Amino acid sequence: MIKTINLPPRGRGLIEITREIEVLVRQYCSGTGLCTLAIQHTSASLLIQENADPSARKDLENWLDRLVPENDPLYTHTLEGPDDMPAHIKSMLTQTTLSIPVLDGKLGLGTWQGIFLWEHRDQPQHRHITLHLLND
Amino acid sequence: MIKTINLPPRGRGLIEITREIEVLVRQYCSGTGLCTLAIQHTSASLLIQENADPSARKDLENWLDRLVPENDPLYTHTLEGPDDMPAHIKSMLTQTTLSIPVLDGKLGLGTWQGIFLWEHRDQPQHRHITLHLLND
Amino acid sequence: MIKTINLPPRGRGLIEITREIEVLVRQYCSGTGLCTLAIQHTSASLLIQENADPSARKDLENWLDRLVPENDPLYTHTLEGPDDMPAHIKSMLTQTTLSIPVLDGKLGLGTWQGIFLWEHRDQPQHRHITLHLLND
Repeated sequence: MIKTINLPPRGRGLIEITREIEVLVRQYCSGTGLCTLAIQHTSASLLIQENADPSARKDLENWLDRLVPENDPLYTHTLEGPDDMPAHIKSMLTQTTLSIPVLDGKLGLGTWQGIFLWEHRDQPQHRHITLHLLND
Repeated sequence: MIKTINLPPRGRGLIEITREIEVLVRQYCSGTGLCTLAIQHTSASLLIQENADPSARKDLENWLDRLVPENDPLYTHTLEGPDDMPAHIKSMLTQTTLSIPVLDGKLGLGTWQGIFLWEHRDQPQHRHITLHLLND
Repeated sequence: MIKTINLPPRGRGLIEITREIEVLVRQYCSGTGLCTLAIQHTSASLLIQENADPSARKDLENWLDRLVPENDPLYTHTLEGPDDMPAHIKSMLTQTTLSIPVLDGKLGLGTWQGIFLWEHRDQPQHRHITLHLLND
């Protein structure tokens, strides 16, 4: 089963999408399987990270913003705005595809894990994720 | 086939787990297939890297420790100790899920590749990896 | 279906391999499925990134070269040349395996996405990627 998940435009930062994925998985798989996610963009990425304490999320964002600042004189790809090249680099350093085992119709995530869309651009935009679900 | 691999508490650093995975793969798949690994934690991660020379492994650890130091004044998520926020960032920069083709019941790794659990916390703790094995 | 893709030696940098993968996918899958790629090396890696503007690619290369310079006094693994340890670190920070859904016999990539082999060594060498194709 393949489905495109269309996410509404939201601001820059880590946006939890675990529920959206779980609903689809439960709908199409009641036993074991494999859920693969692929984001169709190069200035937004995927991440599995701690979803309990928002301060951890904020620190991840701030740390990556400091590692990959805007207006770095190294950049030549600047036509699409000061946040574009940092967005590509941040995507490079995180994930574009994720594969998560499914058990009893539920994602095999750890207790503190959530799935996040990481929007690296300032301007909110529609984002699309392809979900492939294998039913064992 | 889905199985949880329970790893005993071991110290911080890169811990090779290729053998543990290979034994399971051989047990459940004699032909071709796909082996997916997902770690259930956000302060430990997965990595495929060189398993021949321990000096390469040591340099990876030291390089990442320098890039992501403890006690960075940027961190606000500090309640769980000085090694906790660096552990989340190091996990973010490496892998949470891996998918490895299986050929003739063996992982399709290169000659110098091994699979590692990267423990980023100081205190040894039990770690769990979910393994999904698809038999073609 | 499993196939080894043998890539001819090419220079250091991001080398687009989307076409090579697409040809194989179309040959073996006309409907939906899942394409998994695993590179068999620890000094070259995989990346899905923007394939339209070469300046974005150049900036990714230059940024990573600056983050992971050669001749860093931290390195002890230096026997295989000054570009070897940086190559392992760059591989660690990018991808070794990728999983891409297939739709109507075509890779489910976004409009601006391409698949790249990232050669991190100076000396051109043969590189091998294992491709696993699941036909739903």
